[in-house]
Amino acid sequence: MVRINAKDITREKLLDEGVICLMERGYHGTGLQEILKSVGVPKGSFYNYFNSKEDYGAEVIGHYIDPFIRQLDEWLNKPGVDALAALIAYFKAMIRELERRQFAGGCLLGNLIGEIGDTSETCRIALQEAIRHYRDKLKSGLARAQREGTVRGDKSAEEMADFLVNAWQGALLRMKIERSTRPLEECCQNLLQEYFRP
Amino acid sequence: MVRINAKDITREKLLDEGVICLMERGYHGTGLQEILKSVGVPKGSFYNYFNSKEDYGAEVIGHYIDPFIRQLDEWLNKPGVDALAALIAYFKAMIRELERRQFAGGCLLGNLIGEIGDTSETCRIALQEAIRHYRDKLKSGLARAQREGTVRGDKSAEEMADFLVNAWQGALLRMKIERSTRPLEECCQNLLQEYFRP
Repeated sequence: MVRINAKDITREKLLDEGVICLMERGYHGTGLQEILKSVGVPKGSFYNYFNSKEDYGAEVIGHYIDPFIRQLDEWLNKPGVDALAALIAYFKAMIRELERRQFAGGCLLGNLIGEIGDTSETCRIALQEAIRHYRDKLKSGLARAQREGTVRGDKSAEEMADFLVNAWQGALLRMKIERSTRPLEECCQNLLQEYFRP
Repeated sequence: MVRINAKDITREKLLDEGVICLMERGYHGTGLQEILKSVGVPKGSFYNYFNSKEDYGAEVIGHYIDPFIRQLDEWLNKPGVDALAALIAYFKAMIRELERRQFAGGCLLGNLIGEIGDTSETCRIALQEAIRHYRDKLKSGLARAQREGTVRGDKSAEEMADFLVNAWQGALLRMKIERSTRPLEECCQNLLQEYFRP
């Protein structure tokens, strides 16, 4: 049995709050004191939980991407759904969710890459790992779709997954300034329904 | 004859410095006082030039994109070069330049969309206009390539230009964390040399 102590619960709350704050105000716009205040942790106790703001940012990045990978995994493991259909359904569900939230925030990874992707080495590594982890899940779906004959076999699944994750990040940026999910829909249509087909 | 006064020269210098600072430290990480100091303008005189930090950000955005559009235009106007070859050559030159700069900064537009694309309405509009302006130039190149028979005619030039500019922005983000121009090369290869071909 895993024992969860009060410190772990607070740590988890600090990471949840970090996702919200970094999404709303960015890395430089987020103060550690306001995060501690929201979570109800005494001022100055931040370093009981994390070594630095950079380390905290890096952990928030991993904490943010996990549910997306789990959700994608769930779609890919639905019985009776072929891999390409699962990928399309996953992206459609994401688009509906972004529409429901009125396009707010976009993707925390893309936002942080833009802001600090080449100034904080700790966060750069965390962002690289998060994106690669997500890419690997997409790659496993595309590789199965290749075996199922619904995706072209003349490009590697990894190359297509990399292109998809990058193009999706770009579409999320465009969504934010156009306040429209059209860039996301066109990204899925162009890649999953056209370019990646055999 | 256009008379350029000292105020205009200072304004231009403030915009140049804004590109450098926003690229390095982002919007929230950039202080107006440090910009004034670098340019040698007295503290507190910022509002002689711009109404607010947001207005300044919006002007820096337009100031940043102009040379890229001019450069693209020059490639598209080279005598004896067909439009698709000009687009490919333009992106190749950009890739070489990013490599030379060791991938530093990426694209200021993408960075700012990530950081403040949905929190500053003034900057959102400026970013939207800058991206659309750039998209329009790509669109004119793709439309000519369609007439020249080197680009497919079953998709509109605007749709392809939108997809290209978005995918390129995503590839620039990925470049920053991978410290590699490979995402950029793959973006050009996949779109200009494959998906957009007839």
